[in-house]
Amino acid sequence: MAELRGMFNGRADLSAAIAARGSYLCVGLDPDPQRIPASCGSGVAGMEAFCREIVAATADSAVAFKPNLAFFEAYGAAGWEACARIIADIPKSCLVIADAKRGDIGNTSGRYASALFDGLGADAVTVAPYMGEDSVRPFLDHGPGKWTVLLALTSNPGAQDFEFHGDPPLFERVIRRAIGWSGPDRLMFVVGATRPEQLARARALAPDHFFLVPGVGAQGGTLADVTEAGWAPGCGLLVNASRSILYASAGPDFAAAARAESEAMRVEMGAELARR
Amino acid sequence: MAELRGMFNGRADLSAAIAARGSYLCVGLDPDPQRIPASCGSGVAGMEAFCREIVAATADSAVAFKPNLAFFEAYGAAGWEACARIIADIPKSCLVIADAKRGDIGNTSGRYASALFDGLGADAVTVAPYMGEDSVRPFLDHGPGKWTVLLALTSNPGAQDFEFHGDPPLFERVIRRAIGWSGPDRLMFVVGATRPEQLARARALAPDHFFLVPGVGAQGGTLADVTEAGWAPGCGLLVNASRSILYASAGPDFAAAARAESEAMRVEMGAELARR
Repeated sequence: MAELRGMFNGRADLSAAIAARGSYLCVGLDPDPQRIPASCGSGVAGMEAFCREIVAATADSAVAFKPNLAFFEAYGAAGWEACARIIADIPKSCLVIADAKRGDIGNTSGRYASALFDGLGADAVTVAPYMGEDSVRPFLDHGPGKWTVLLALTSNPGAQDFEFHGDPPLFERVIRRAIGWSGPDRLMFVVGATRPEQLARARALAPDHFFLVPGVGAQGGTLADVTEAGWAPGCGLLVNASRSILYASAGPDFAAAARAESEAMRVEMGAELARR
Repeated sequence: MAELRGMFNGRADLSAAIAARGSYLCVGLDPDPQRIPASCGSGVAGMEAFCREIVAATADSAVAFKPNLAFFEAYGAAGWEACARIIADIPKSCLVIADAKRGDIGNTSGRYASALFDGLGADAVTVAPYMGEDSVRPFLDHGPGKWTVLLALTSNPGAQDFEFHGDPPLFERVIRRAIGWSGPDRLMFVVGATRPEQLARARALAPDHFFLVPGVGAQGGTLADVTEAGWAPGCGLLVNASRSILYASAGPDFAAAARAESEAMRVEMGAELARR
Protein backbone atom coordinates (compact mmCIF):
# COMPACT_ATOMS: atom_id res chain seq x y z
CA MET A 1 0.00 0.00 0.00
CA ALA A 2 2.86 2.34 0.84
CA GLU A 3 3.75 2.71 -2.85
CA LEU A 4 0.33 4.11 -3.62
CA ARG A 5 0.75 7.08 -1.30
CA GLY A 6 3.94 9.12 -0.94
CA MET A 7 2.88 12.42 -2.47
CA PHE A 8 4.79 14.31 0.22
CA ASN A 9 8.50 13.91 -0.39
CA GLY A 10 9.46 16.87 1.72
CA ARG A 11 8.21 20.09 3.22
CA ALA A 12 7.96 21.78 -0.19
CA ASP A 13 5.32 19.25 -1.21
CA LEU A 14 3.44 19.77 2.03
CA SER A 15 3.63 23.54 1.72
CA ALA A 16 2.36 23.31 -1.87
CA ALA A 17 -0.60 21.21 -0.75
CA ILE A 18 -1.41 23.74 1.97
CA ALA A 19 -1.22 26.62 -0.48
CA ALA A 20 -3.36 24.79 -3.03
CA ARG A 21 -6.04 23.86 -0.50
CA GLY A 22 -5.86 27.10 1.48
CA SER A 23 -5.89 24.89 4.57
CA TYR A 24 -3.53 23.45 7.16
CA LEU A 25 -6.22 21.40 8.85
CA CYS A 26 -5.51 17.87 10.05
CA VAL A 27 -8.65 15.90 10.90
CA GLY A 28 -8.03 13.50 13.78
CA LEU A 29 -9.89 10.20 13.42
CA ASP A 30 -10.57 9.23 17.06
CA PRO A 31 -13.75 7.18 16.66
CA ASP A 32 -15.03 6.89 20.22
CA PRO A 33 -17.50 3.98 20.31
CA GLN A 34 -19.65 5.92 22.80
CA ARG A 35 -20.11 8.76 20.34
CA ILE A 36 -20.51 7.12 16.95
CA PRO A 37 -24.02 7.94 15.68
CA ALA A 38 -26.38 4.98 15.74
CA SER A 39 -27.08 5.51 12.05
CA CYS A 40 -23.56 4.18 11.26
CA GLY A 41 -24.23 0.79 12.82
CA SER A 42 -22.31 -0.77 15.67
CA GLY A 43 -18.98 -2.43 16.39
CA VAL A 44 -16.05 -2.28 14.05
CA ALA A 45 -18.28 -1.97 10.98
CA GLY A 46 -19.99 1.05 12.49
CA MET A 47 -16.64 2.60 13.30
CA GLU A 48 -15.41 2.07 9.76
CA ALA A 49 -18.59 3.49 8.25
CA PHE A 50 -18.35 6.53 10.53
CA CYS A 51 -14.70 7.19 9.63
CA ARG A 52 -15.39 6.82 5.92
CA GLU A 53 -18.24 9.31 6.08
CA ILE A 54 -16.08 11.76 8.03
CA VAL A 55 -13.25 11.44 5.50
CA ALA A 56 -15.62 11.96 2.58
CA ALA A 57 -17.20 14.98 4.25
CA THR A 58 -13.97 16.74 5.24
CA ALA A 59 -11.35 15.80 2.62
CA ASP A 60 -11.93 19.00 0.64
CA SER A 61 -11.25 21.11 3.72
CA ALA A 62 -8.27 19.22 5.13
CA VAL A 63 -4.68 18.62 4.11
CA ALA A 64 -4.07 15.71 6.49
CA PHE A 65 -5.86 12.95 8.39
CA LYS A 66 -4.64 11.44 11.64
CA PRO A 67 -6.13 8.06 12.55
CA ASN A 68 -5.61 7.38 16.26
CA LEU A 69 -4.52 3.76 16.42
CA ALA A 70 -5.78 3.09 19.94
CA PHE A 71 -9.38 3.33 18.78
CA PHE A 72 -8.72 0.73 16.08
CA GLU A 73 -6.55 -1.60 18.18
CA ALA A 74 -9.34 -1.75 20.72
CA TYR A 75 -11.16 -3.85 18.08
CA GLY A 76 -8.19 -6.17 17.69
CA ALA A 77 -7.30 -7.63 14.30
CA ALA A 78 -10.59 -6.49 12.76
CA GLY A 79 -9.87 -2.92 13.86
CA TRP A 80 -6.39 -3.08 12.36
CA GLU A 81 -7.80 -4.22 9.02
CA ALA A 82 -10.45 -1.49 9.09
CA CYS A 83 -7.76 1.11 9.74
CA ALA A 84 -5.72 -0.09 6.76
CA ARG A 85 -8.80 0.04 4.50
CA ILE A 86 -9.71 3.55 5.68
CA ILE A 87 -6.15 4.78 5.07
CA ALA A 88 -6.05 3.20 1.62
CA ASP A 89 -9.13 5.19 0.62
CA ILE A 90 -8.07 8.58 1.99
CA PRO A 91 -7.35 10.84 -1.00
CA LYS A 92 -3.66 10.74 -1.89
CA SER A 93 -3.61 14.53 -1.82
CA CYS A 94 -3.89 14.33 1.98
CA LEU A 95 -1.06 13.32 4.30
CA VAL A 96 -1.97 10.35 6.53
CA ILE A 97 -0.44 10.43 10.01
CA ALA A 98 -0.74 7.19 12.00
CA ASP A 99 -1.08 8.48 15.55
CA ALA A 100 0.65 5.62 17.31
CA LYS A 101 3.13 7.24 19.76
CA ARG A 102 5.53 4.34 19.24
CA GLY A 103 9.18 4.16 20.35
CA ASP A 104 11.37 1.25 21.43
CA ILE A 105 14.93 0.00 21.01
CA GLY A 106 16.29 0.16 17.47
CA ASN A 107 15.37 -3.21 15.98
CA THR A 108 11.92 -3.06 17.58
CA SER A 109 11.25 0.46 16.28
CA GLY A 110 12.23 -0.89 12.87
CA ARG A 111 9.40 -3.41 13.08
CA TYR A 112 6.96 -0.70 14.18
CA ALA A 113 8.05 1.47 11.26
CA SER A 114 7.40 -1.41 8.90
CA ALA A 115 4.00 -2.13 10.48
CA LEU A 116 2.83 1.47 10.20
CA PHE A 117 4.44 2.73 7.00
CA ASP A 118 4.33 -0.47 4.93
CA GLY A 119 1.53 -2.44 6.59
CA LEU A 120 -0.99 0.31 7.34
CA GLY A 121 0.26 2.50 4.51
CA ALA A 122 0.66 5.70 6.54
CA ASP A 123 2.76 8.61 5.28
CA ALA A 124 3.74 9.68 8.79
CA VAL A 125 3.88 8.21 12.30
CA THR A 126 3.84 9.91 15.70
CA VAL A 127 6.80 8.76 17.81
CA ALA A 128 7.60 9.22 21.52
CA PRO A 129 11.15 10.44 22.21
CA TYR A 130 11.74 9.03 25.72
CA MET A 131 14.20 6.29 24.68
CA GLY A 132 16.34 8.57 22.51
CA GLU A 133 17.89 8.55 19.07
CA ASP A 134 18.13 4.84 18.32
CA SER A 135 14.41 4.49 19.09
CA VAL A 136 13.55 7.22 16.55
CA ARG A 137 16.14 6.49 13.85
CA PRO A 138 14.32 3.57 12.13
CA PHE A 139 11.32 5.83 11.51
CA LEU A 140 13.50 8.64 10.13
CA ASP A 141 15.40 6.24 7.88
CA HIS A 142 12.44 4.27 6.59
CA GLY A 143 12.46 5.81 3.16
CA PRO A 144 11.57 8.83 1.05
CA GLY A 145 8.15 10.33 1.55
CA LYS A 146 7.84 8.88 5.07
CA TRP A 147 7.64 11.30 7.99
CA THR A 148 8.36 11.06 11.70
CA VAL A 149 6.22 13.28 13.93
CA LEU A 150 8.11 13.45 17.22
CA LEU A 151 6.39 14.39 20.48
CA ALA A 152 7.89 17.52 21.97
CA LEU A 153 5.22 19.40 23.91
CA THR A 154 1.80 17.80 24.21
CA SER A 155 -1.47 19.51 25.12
CA ASN A 156 -2.71 17.19 27.88
CA PRO A 157 -2.56 18.03 31.61
CA GLY A 158 0.19 15.41 32.16
CA ALA A 159 2.55 17.43 29.94
CA GLN A 160 3.43 19.28 33.17
CA ASP A 161 4.82 16.13 34.80
CA PHE A 162 7.94 15.55 32.70
CA GLU A 163 7.98 17.67 29.54
CA PHE A 164 9.11 20.74 31.52
CA HIS A 165 11.64 18.87 33.66
CA GLY A 166 15.15 20.32 33.76
CA ASP A 167 16.72 23.48 32.43
CA PRO A 168 16.25 23.83 29.53
CA PRO A 169 12.91 22.02 29.85
CA LEU A 170 12.83 18.51 28.40
CA PHE A 171 10.65 19.44 25.42
CA GLU A 172 13.24 22.01 24.36
CA ARG A 173 16.02 19.47 24.68
CA VAL A 174 14.03 17.02 22.53
CA ILE A 175 13.72 19.65 19.78
CA ARG A 176 17.38 20.71 20.01
CA ARG A 177 18.65 17.14 19.80
CA ALA A 178 16.24 15.85 17.19
CA ILE A 179 16.88 18.59 14.63
CA GLY A 180 20.41 17.18 14.54
CA TRP A 181 19.02 13.76 13.62
CA SER A 182 17.12 14.77 10.49
CA GLY A 183 16.46 17.67 8.22
CA PRO A 184 12.97 19.15 7.91
CA ASP A 185 11.84 17.01 4.98
CA ARG A 186 11.14 13.90 7.06
CA LEU A 187 10.74 15.18 10.61
CA MET A 188 8.14 17.33 12.27
CA PHE A 189 7.27 17.95 15.92
CA VAL A 190 4.13 17.79 18.00
CA VAL A 191 3.85 21.14 19.78
CA GLY A 192 0.62 21.77 21.67
CA ALA A 193 -1.36 24.98 21.46
CA THR A 194 -2.02 25.25 25.18
CA ARG A 195 0.17 28.33 25.49
CA PRO A 196 1.11 30.21 22.31
CA GLU A 197 4.34 31.54 23.89
CA GLN A 198 5.60 27.96 24.16
CA LEU A 199 4.80 27.44 20.50
CA ALA A 200 6.81 30.56 19.71
CA ARG A 201 9.70 29.20 21.78
CA ALA A 202 9.60 25.90 19.88
CA ARG A 203 9.54 27.81 16.59
CA ALA A 204 12.64 29.74 17.63
CA LEU A 205 14.44 26.45 18.29
CA ALA A 206 13.25 24.75 15.10
CA PRO A 207 12.76 27.44 12.46
CA ASP A 208 12.69 24.96 9.57
CA HIS A 209 10.46 22.09 10.72
CA PHE A 210 6.71 21.63 10.41
CA PHE A 211 4.73 21.38 13.65
CA LEU A 212 1.64 19.29 14.25
CA VAL A 213 -0.45 21.30 16.71
CA PRO A 214 -3.17 19.70 18.87
CA GLY A 215 -5.28 21.50 21.43
CA VAL A 216 -6.51 24.54 19.47
CA GLY A 217 -9.75 25.85 20.92
CA ALA A 218 -11.09 24.35 24.18
CA GLN A 219 -8.34 25.22 26.74
CA GLY A 220 -5.80 26.01 24.00
CA GLY A 221 -5.02 29.15 22.06
CA THR A 222 -7.17 30.40 19.21
CA LEU A 223 -6.28 29.59 15.62
CA ALA A 224 -5.10 33.18 15.12
CA ASP A 225 -2.83 33.02 18.20
CA VAL A 226 -1.40 29.69 17.20
CA THR A 227 -0.76 30.73 13.63
CA GLU A 228 0.88 33.97 14.70
CA ALA A 229 3.17 32.13 17.13
CA GLY A 230 4.02 29.11 15.02
CA TRP A 231 3.82 29.92 11.32
CA ALA A 232 7.08 30.14 9.41
CA PRO A 233 7.66 30.65 5.70
CA GLY A 234 7.80 27.32 3.87
CA CYS A 235 7.44 25.18 6.99
CA GLY A 236 4.23 25.97 8.69
CA LEU A 237 1.79 24.10 10.82
CA LEU A 238 -0.69 21.31 10.66
CA VAL A 239 -3.44 22.15 13.13
CA ASN A 240 -5.33 19.11 14.35
CA ALA A 241 -9.01 19.01 15.23
CA SER A 242 -10.73 15.80 16.23
CA ARG A 243 -13.79 15.89 18.44
CA SER A 244 -15.01 19.32 17.34
CA ILE A 245 -15.37 17.93 13.81
CA LEU A 246 -16.21 14.25 14.41
CA TYR A 247 -18.95 15.00 16.90
CA ALA A 248 -20.18 18.33 15.55
CA SER A 249 -23.58 16.65 15.55
CA ALA A 250 -24.64 13.52 17.41
CA GLY A 251 -27.46 12.86 14.96
CA PRO A 252 -27.74 11.36 11.49
CA ASP A 253 -26.61 14.74 10.05
CA PHE A 254 -23.14 14.22 11.59
CA ALA A 255 -21.39 14.20 8.20
CA ALA A 256 -22.95 17.46 7.08
CA ALA A 257 -22.09 19.01 10.43
CA ALA A 258 -18.50 17.73 10.17
CA ARG A 259 -18.26 19.19 6.68
CA ALA A 260 -19.53 22.57 7.87
CA GLU A 261 -17.15 22.61 10.85
CA SER A 262 -14.08 21.61 8.83
CA GLU A 263 -14.94 24.06 6.06
CA ALA A 264 -15.32 26.85 8.62
CA MET A 265 -11.82 26.05 9.85
CA ARG A 266 -10.51 26.01 6.28
CA VAL A 267 -12.00 29.43 5.63
CA GLU A 268 -10.41 30.81 8.79
CA MET A 269 -7.08 29.21 7.84
CA GLY A 270 -7.32 30.63 4.34
CA ALA A 271 -7.68 34.10 5.83
CA GLU A 272 -4.64 33.50 8.04
CA LEU A 273 -2.61 32.29 5.06
CA ALA A 274 -3.64 35.33 3.01
CA ARG A 275 -2.11 37.57 5.69
CA ARG A 276 1.31 35.91 5.44
CA MET B 1 -9.65 -13.75 27.51
CA ALA B 2 -8.63 -11.42 30.32
CA GLU B 3 -10.85 -13.28 32.79
CA LEU B 4 -8.92 -16.48 32.22
CA ARG B 5 -5.65 -14.99 33.40
CA GLY B 6 -5.25 -12.74 36.46
CA MET B 7 -3.29 -15.00 38.80
CA PHE B 8 -1.19 -12.02 39.93
CA ASN B 9 -3.31 -9.74 42.04
CA GLY B 10 -0.36 -8.01 43.65
CA ARG B 11 3.31 -8.31 44.42
CA ALA B 12 2.68 -11.03 47.00
CA ASP B 13 1.35 -13.29 44.24
CA LEU B 14 4.31 -12.49 42.04
CA SER B 15 6.77 -13.09 44.86
CA ALA B 16 5.09 -16.41 45.63
CA ALA B 17 5.41 -17.50 42.01
CA ILE B 18 9.09 -16.57 42.01
CA ALA B 19 9.70 -18.50 45.22
CA ALA B 20 7.80 -21.53 43.95
CA ARG B 21 9.64 -21.60 40.63
CA GLY B 22 13.00 -20.56 42.01
CA SER B 23 13.21 -18.18 39.07
CA TYR B 24 12.67 -14.53 38.21
CA LEU B 25 13.24 -15.02 34.51
CA CYS B 26 11.09 -13.19 31.95
CA VAL B 27 11.42 -14.62 28.44
CA GLY B 28 11.07 -11.88 25.82
CA LEU B 29 9.25 -13.01 22.68
CA ASP B 30 10.89 -10.88 19.97
CA PRO B 31 10.46 -13.16 16.95
CA ASP B 32 12.79 -11.63 14.37
CA PRO B 33 11.74 -12.94 10.95
CA GLN B 34 15.40 -13.04 9.89
CA ARG B 35 16.26 -15.44 12.69
CA ILE B 36 13.31 -17.83 12.91
CA PRO B 37 14.60 -21.32 12.08
CA ALA B 38 13.44 -22.57 8.69
CA SER B 39 12.01 -25.66 10.38
CA CYS B 40 9.21 -23.50 11.82
CA GLY B 41 7.91 -22.46 8.42
CA SER B 42 7.64 -18.91 7.12
CA GLY B 43 5.51 -15.82 7.54
CA VAL B 44 3.12 -15.31 10.39
CA ALA B 45 2.49 -19.06 10.76
CA GLY B 46 6.21 -19.67 11.14
CA MET B 47 6.44 -16.93 13.73
CA GLU B 48 3.55 -18.36 15.71
CA ALA B 49 5.00 -21.89 15.58
CA PHE B 50 8.37 -20.56 16.72
CA CYS B 51 6.87 -18.65 19.66
CA ARG B 52 4.78 -21.63 20.75
CA GLU B 53 7.81 -23.90 20.74
CA ILE B 54 9.81 -21.34 22.72
CA VAL B 55 7.01 -21.00 25.29
CA ALA B 56 6.68 -24.76 25.66
CA ALA B 57 10.43 -25.17 26.04
CA THR B 58 10.96 -22.41 28.61
CA ALA B 59 7.75 -22.20 30.67
CA ASP B 60 9.16 -24.39 33.43
CA SER B 61 12.14 -22.08 33.84
CA ALA B 62 10.39 -18.73 33.58
CA VAL B 63 7.93 -16.78 35.68
CA ALA B 64 6.96 -14.31 32.95
CA PHE B 65 6.76 -13.91 29.17
CA LYS B 66 7.02 -10.62 27.34
CA PRO B 67 5.71 -10.62 23.77
CA ASN B 68 7.10 -7.63 21.89
CA LEU B 69 4.15 -6.24 19.96
CA ALA B 70 6.18 -4.65 17.17
CA PHE B 71 7.13 -8.07 15.82
CA PHE B 72 3.47 -9.08 15.68
CA GLU B 73 2.10 -5.78 14.35
CA ALA B 74 4.56 -6.04 11.47
CA TYR B 75 2.30 -8.85 10.22
CA GLY B 76 -0.79 -6.67 10.52
CA ALA B 77 -4.11 -8.15 11.60
CA ALA B 78 -2.84 -11.72 11.23
CA GLY B 79 0.05 -10.93 13.56
CA TRP B 80 -2.30 -9.43 16.11
CA GLU B 81 -4.45 -12.57 16.08
CA ALA B 82 -1.39 -14.79 16.40
CA CYS B 83 -0.23 -12.77 19.40
CA ALA B 84 -3.61 -13.18 21.11
CA ARG B 85 -3.56 -16.94 20.51
CA ILE B 86 0.00 -17.26 21.83
CA ILE B 87 -0.89 -15.29 24.98
CA ALA B 88 -4.03 -17.37 25.55
CA ASP B 89 -1.92 -20.52 25.61
CA ILE B 90 0.88 -19.28 27.90
CA PRO B 91 0.51 -21.11 31.23
CA LYS B 92 -1.55 -19.06 33.67
CA SER B 93 1.20 -19.49 36.25
CA CYS B 94 3.32 -17.07 34.19
CA LEU B 95 2.77 -13.31 34.04
CA VAL B 96 2.26 -12.04 30.47
CA ILE B 97 3.67 -8.58 29.78
CA ALA B 98 2.59 -7.01 26.48
CA ASP B 99 5.68 -5.00 25.53
CA ALA B 100 3.90 -2.17 23.75
CA LYS B 101 5.46 1.06 25.12
CA ARG B 102 2.13 2.82 24.73
CA GLY B 103 1.16 6.21 26.17
CA ASP B 104 -1.21 8.93 24.93
CA ILE B 105 -3.78 11.38 26.29
CA GLY B 106 -6.21 9.91 28.81
CA ASN B 107 -9.12 8.70 26.69
CA THR B 108 -6.72 7.29 24.09
CA SER B 109 -4.65 5.44 26.70
CA GLY B 110 -7.93 3.99 27.94
CA ARG B 111 -8.50 2.46 24.51
CA TYR B 112 -4.95 1.09 24.46
CA ALA B 113 -5.47 -0.42 27.91
CA SER B 114 -8.64 -2.10 26.67
CA ALA B 115 -6.88 -3.38 23.52
CA LEU B 116 -3.98 -4.89 25.44
CA PHE B 117 -5.54 -6.08 28.69
CA ASP B 118 -8.96 -7.15 27.41
CA GLY B 119 -8.32 -7.77 23.71
CA LEU B 120 -4.91 -9.44 23.80
CA GLY B 121 -5.43 -10.76 27.32
CA ALA B 122 -2.15 -9.52 28.78
CA ASP B 123 -1.60 -9.26 32.54
CA ALA B 124 0.77 -6.31 32.20
CA VAL B 125 1.63 -3.62 29.66
CA THR B 126 4.79 -1.56 29.22
CA VAL B 127 3.98 2.17 29.14
CA ALA B 128 6.10 5.20 28.18
CA PRO B 129 5.93 8.07 30.71
CA TYR B 130 6.65 11.07 28.47
CA MET B 131 3.11 12.49 28.46
CA GLY B 132 2.67 12.24 32.24
CA GLU B 133 0.08 11.02 34.70
CA ASP B 134 -3.11 11.20 32.65
CA SER B 135 -1.44 9.09 29.95
CA VAL B 136 -0.58 6.37 32.50
CA ARG B 137 -3.66 6.49 34.72
CA PRO B 138 -6.01 4.40 32.51
CA PHE B 139 -3.52 1.51 32.62
CA LEU B 140 -3.16 1.76 36.41
CA ASP B 141 -6.92 1.91 36.90
CA HIS B 142 -7.89 -0.83 34.48
CA GLY B 143 -8.72 -3.36 37.14
CA PRO B 144 -7.39 -5.85 39.66
CA GLY B 145 -4.64 -8.18 38.49
CA LYS B 146 -3.57 -5.80 35.70
CA TRP B 147 -0.10 -4.27 35.89
CA THR B 148 1.54 -1.19 34.43
CA VAL B 149 5.26 -1.51 33.69
CA LEU B 150 6.49 2.07 33.35
CA LEU B 151 9.70 2.93 31.50
CA ALA B 152 12.20 4.62 33.80
CA LEU B 153 15.74 3.77 32.68
CA THR B 154 16.12 1.73 29.50
CA SER B 155 19.18 -0.25 28.40
CA ASN B 156 19.58 1.06 24.85
CA PRO B 157 22.24 3.61 23.78
CA GLY B 158 19.58 6.31 23.29
CA ALA B 159 18.82 6.22 27.03
CA GLN B 160 21.60 8.79 27.30
CA ASP B 161 19.71 11.34 25.19
CA PHE B 162 16.85 12.24 27.53
CA GLU B 163 16.57 9.82 30.47
CA PHE B 164 19.43 11.56 32.29
CA HIS B 165 18.29 15.08 31.45
CA GLY B 166 18.01 17.49 34.38
CA ASP B 167 18.86 17.28 38.05
CA PRO B 168 17.66 14.91 39.35
CA PRO B 169 17.87 12.99 36.08
CA LEU B 170 14.56 12.41 34.31
CA PHE B 171 14.43 8.68 35.09
CA GLU B 172 14.63 9.47 38.80
CA ARG B 173 11.86 12.04 38.50
CA VAL B 174 9.69 9.47 36.69
CA ILE B 175 10.14 7.02 39.56
CA ARG B 176 9.56 9.66 42.27
CA ARG B 177 6.36 10.90 40.64
CA ALA B 178 4.94 7.55 39.62
CA ILE B 179 5.19 5.91 43.04
CA GLY B 180 2.72 8.58 44.12
CA TRP B 181 0.29 7.40 41.41
CA SER B 182 0.01 3.77 42.47
CA GLY B 183 1.06 1.35 45.13
CA PRO B 184 3.35 -1.57 44.30
CA ASP B 185 0.61 -4.09 43.55
CA ARG B 186 -0.16 -2.73 40.09
CA LEU B 187 2.93 -0.78 39.10
CA MET B 188 6.48 -1.81 38.31
CA PHE B 189 9.33 -0.03 36.55
CA VAL B 190 11.67 -0.85 33.69
CA VAL B 191 15.20 -0.29 34.99
CA GLY B 192 18.01 -1.40 32.71
CA ALA B 193 21.01 -3.40 33.88
CA THR B 194 23.56 -1.37 31.98
CA ARG B 195 25.08 0.00 35.18
CA PRO B 196 24.23 -1.75 38.47
CA GLU B 197 24.79 1.47 40.47
CA GLN B 198 21.86 3.04 38.62
CA LEU B 199 19.74 0.04 39.50
CA ALA B 200 20.74 0.51 43.15
CA ARG B 201 19.77 4.18 42.89
CA ALA B 202 16.37 3.26 41.46
CA ARG B 203 15.90 0.73 44.25
CA ALA B 204 16.64 3.40 46.85
CA LEU B 205 13.92 5.58 45.31
CA ALA B 206 11.36 2.78 44.96
CA PRO B 207 11.98 0.27 47.74
CA ASP B 208 8.60 -1.42 47.34
CA HIS B 209 8.09 -1.85 43.58
CA PHE B 210 9.08 -4.68 41.29
CA PHE B 211 11.54 -3.86 38.50
CA LEU B 212 11.63 -5.39 35.04
CA VAL B 213 15.30 -5.49 34.08
CA PRO B 214 16.46 -5.75 30.48
CA GLY B 215 20.06 -5.77 29.31
CA VAL B 216 21.62 -8.40 31.60
CA GLY B 217 24.70 -9.90 29.98
CA ALA B 218 25.95 -8.44 26.67
CA GLN B 219 26.92 -4.86 27.59
CA GLY B 220 24.98 -4.99 30.87
CA GLY B 221 25.82 -6.18 34.36
CA THR B 222 25.96 -9.84 35.33
CA LEU B 223 22.99 -11.54 36.93
CA ALA B 224 24.82 -11.52 40.27
CA ASP B 225 25.55 -7.78 40.05
CA VAL B 226 21.99 -6.97 39.04
CA THR B 227 20.46 -9.10 41.77
CA GLU B 228 22.74 -7.62 44.41
CA ALA B 229 21.88 -4.07 43.32
CA GLY B 230 18.18 -4.52 42.72
CA TRP B 231 16.73 -7.26 44.89
CA ALA B 232 14.49 -6.26 47.77
CA PRO B 233 12.50 -8.44 50.16
CA GLY B 234 9.03 -9.15 48.81
CA CYS B 235 9.40 -6.98 45.72
CA GLY B 236 12.23 -8.25 43.64
CA LEU B 237 13.08 -8.28 39.99
CA LEU B 238 11.98 -9.79 36.75
CA VAL B 239 15.09 -10.20 34.62
CA ASN B 240 14.35 -10.30 30.92
CA ALA B 241 16.26 -12.34 28.36
CA SER B 242 15.21 -12.46 24.74
CA ARG B 243 17.74 -13.17 22.03
CA SER B 244 20.10 -15.26 24.20
CA ILE B 245 17.23 -17.73 24.67
CA LEU B 246 15.26 -17.41 21.41
CA TYR B 247 18.31 -17.81 19.22
CA ALA B 248 20.45 -20.06 21.41
CA SER B 249 20.60 -22.28 18.33
CA ALA B 250 19.82 -21.35 14.74
CA GLY B 251 19.12 -24.96 13.83
CA PRO B 252 16.18 -27.32 14.25
CA ASP B 253 17.34 -27.94 17.84
CA PHE B 254 16.43 -24.31 18.76
CA ALA B 255 13.79 -25.35 21.30
CA ALA B 256 16.13 -27.69 23.16
CA ALA B 257 18.81 -25.01 23.15
CA ALA B 258 16.29 -22.43 24.45
CA ARG B 259 15.25 -24.85 27.18
CA ALA B 260 18.87 -25.39 28.22
CA GLU B 261 19.64 -21.66 28.21
CA SER B 262 16.54 -20.70 30.21
CA GLU B 263 17.08 -23.54 32.66
CA ALA B 264 20.70 -22.45 33.18
CA MET B 265 19.41 -18.99 34.05
CA ARG B 266 16.82 -20.47 36.42
CA VAL B 267 19.52 -22.44 38.21
CA GLU B 268 21.67 -19.34 38.57
CA MET B 269 18.65 -17.38 39.80
CA GLY B 270 17.77 -20.13 42.26
CA ALA B 271 21.25 -19.85 43.74
CA GLU B 272 20.85 -16.08 44.04
CA LEU B 273 17.47 -16.48 45.75
CA ALA B 274 18.90 -19.04 48.17
CA ARG B 275 21.42 -16.44 49.33
CA ARG B 276 18.72 -13.92 50.26
